[in-house]
Amino acid sequence: MKNALGLKCVGCAREYQMSHEIYVCESCGNNLDVIYDYSYVGARLTKESLSSNADRSIWRYRPLLPIEDSSPVPPLFIGWTPLYNSAKLANEHSIKALYIKDDGRNPTASFKDRASAVAVVKAQEARAQAITCASSGNAASALAGICASVGMKNYIFVPASTPRGKIAQLMIYRANIFLVEGPYDEAFDLCLQASQRFGWYQRNTGYNPYTIEGKKTAALEICEQLNWHAPDKVIVPVGDGNIISGLWKGFNDLYQLKFIDRLPQMMAVQAEGACSIVNAVNSDGVLREMEANTIADSIAVGKSRDGLRAVRAIRDSGGMGIKVSDAEILQAIGALARATGIFAEPAAAASYAAFLKLSQSAAFRSDETVLLLITGNGLKDVDSILRDSTEPPRIKANIEEVEALIARSAT
Amino acid sequence: MKNALGLKCVGCAREYQMSHEIYVCESCGNNLDVIYDYSYVGARLTKESLSSNADRSIWRYRPLLPIEDSSPVPPLFIGWTPLYNSAKLANEHSIKALYIKDDGRNPTASFKDRASAVAVVKAQEARAQAITCASSGNAASALAGICASVGMKNYIFVPASTPRGKIAQLMIYRANIFLVEGPYDEAFDLCLQASQRFGWYQRNTGYNPYTIEGKKTAALEICEQLNWHAPDKVIVPVGDGNIISGLWKGFNDLYQLKFIDRLPQMMAVQAEGACSIVNAVNSDGVLREMEANTIADSIAVGKSRDGLRAVRAIRDSGGMGIKVSDAEILQAIGALARATGIFAEPAAAASYAAFLKLSQSAAFRSDETVLLLITGNGLKDVDSILRDSTEPPRIKANIEEVEALIARSAT
Repeated sequence: MKNALGLKCVGCAREYQMSHEIYVCESCGNNLDVIYDYSYVGARLTKESLSSNADRSIWRYRPLLPIEDSSPVPPLFIGWTPLYNSAKLANEHSIKALYIKDDGRNPTASFKDRASAVAVVKAQEARAQAITCASSGNAASALAGICASVGMKNYIFVPASTPRGKIAQLMIYRANIFLVEGPYDEAFDLCLQASQRFGWYQRNTGYNPYTIEGKKTAALEICEQLNWHAPDKVIVPVGDGNIISGLWKGFNDLYQLKFIDRLPQMMAVQAEGACSIVNAVNSDGVLREMEANTIADSIAVGKSRDGLRAVRAIRDSGGMGIKVSDAEILQAIGALARATGIFAEPAAAASYAAFLKLSQSAAFRSDETVLLLITGNGLKDVDSILRDSTEPPRIKANIEEVEALIARSAT
Repeated sequence: MKNALGLKCVGCAREYQMSHEIYVCESCGNNLDVIYDYSYVGARLTKESLSSNADRSIWRYRPLLPIEDSSPVPPLFIGWTPLYNSAKLANEHSIKALYIKDDGRNPTASFKDRASAVAVVKAQEARAQAITCASSGNAASALAGICASVGMKNYIFVPASTPRGKIAQLMIYRANIFLVEGPYDEAFDLCLQASQRFGWYQRNTGYNPYTIEGKKTAALEICEQLNWHAPDKVIVPVGDGNIISGLWKGFNDLYQLKFIDRLPQMMAVQAEGACSIVNAVNSDGVLREMEANTIADSIAVGKSRDGLRAVRAIRDSGGMGIKVSDAEILQAIGALARATGIFAEPAAAASYAAFLKLSQSAAFRSDETVLLLITGNGLKDVDSILRDSTEPPRIKANIEEVEALIARSAT
């Protein structure tokens, strides 16, 4: 393809030609980054070409995606998710604007559709018979759903503890599912082994070089939806580190193309029980594995597979890392829903938990714009809501019982 | 408001001025229909004005909605849901085109957001302190979510058997919830009583005259997405009859405005265990209550509150009614998901079940276009999937277990 010049290791900077055979650096094992020819891209992607493009899906940014011109794309509509401007919350927290990007509105109800779609196109380009991934849940259901839409065989490795909504999605799409009795990190290693053994195309986050390219489309959308401005601060839930790296890539692509004239600060939020990237940012920059333990399953990652790039994104952007507790996350789900009508899954609500915490510690200036990325829909994991809440009152169908309840709640 | 001339009873044709005090006909108790001044509307809503309107939400059709020009609308983005063209399925079933409109992509993951949004605007216009509805689940979560986004108090009556995903939505939005030990039909009557007792604004389907107006926006979108053509046949899951009546209203609005030159046939699908409208269509046109009994909770309606208008829509359009069994519905959820990547809740998948049944009985001509309306996301009710399925295999994190499973599935 002419828009992409090749792949470059984020660790040792070794360069590679674009190839379906290569996933990570053969020298140092680090992730590979797609390098674009921005003058080629800039001639094909302009603000004007976009404003007259009726396709609102992620494929509107095709000149900035590492796929062949002739490649068909999956039919499910991905992207152009709502970007809300909450004047009420901005006012309450004394900032200029609070934007909320609700990526739970994607086809399989999470941000991961963006990445899985690009990976499926690459698998098809590679003429793969099957594609595989390990996942804490969302990447898996995204992959299974998109595979269903194009009829591609898929093998999915998820922790046996994955929320039931995500398992139901895998089952209904009839993925070949392995419920692994162990954490995501073990499912990941097992999936890598199996793909080598059976020759499946690998979609794994922080291994496949193209997931980040799908994920960056959210940054492209954010800037276009804000009339080609980046927010001052972008708060992102972080597990493997691939989403925050993807967003940072997208903002930098637009900066290179002169679509925006300023880059945002990337604010990484992790759960206290799975925070290797935040720990690295806040100390010597070195990533250390830990045992993941958090209710926010989508970011329950002990060994961050894209940590190096994530730490760099946070530091290079002048951002920061912040930890939130499971209690803060659970509380944020309800607080966000009641303030905005957006029902987020635990990992997604972590960005609101971080926002509240940062606001309390006066981390925002009054002239700043802040964006929260909501990465998945709360319907994916209703058990974590129901488990922690009192069941609503049950009544017989008569008005006296209603009156009694109303009277009780008024006192 | 100048676009709407008044309200007219669908039973006895008695006319009323627009008023926040009136819900149903004072003479005969039937539903009221909003009557528009199409020459006024036509001067304000044109194909050209729409094509230059960047607002893709339901509010782009505001001249065809019964709200004041000055009324603010809720911030959640509702409408402009994907309309897929499945060439594969059209081919398999030897029809010209199969369109699938996925309304599970709305903010609270169902079609009902369209109706609840309009009802909330009307409640605000009426300066109501609180709004209420009874619901089999989706109308309730839509109302609760939209109320959260604007800070309006709400009281919700749902059957205690409502799927857990929908209950979780109500809880997270902190609605005032009454779990009624009885079917939807009893919750409905109780809600009416309570609203009169406490002075709450009534959103109930088939009682509030404006829900249908929100629902018709789906028909407006369908025609606009098809470049101002209506499909030949539109298959709609039917409970109270308010959705199919709403769509029919929308198609007729566009026909009156000369945006389309042909009306579609309205095909109503009901569950065998809750089929009073289909029974009426297939016999003497008279609606007879029955005890509702189906897994498709969203259409588990024994007493259809908008049945008269629904029967007329089906008959006037030259459409028909069709019944599907719970087994056919459950089977259709998986079949639709695997063919398209769309995960529908039971009631929503009923339209695909009906499509398959109609196709088998050669009900479609080869030059016809058919549209299926998917009314809700499968994530709302994962229990009905998990209950009926075998759990995926659990394995320890080692490659031998993967190999053993693969070998077994290959034999």
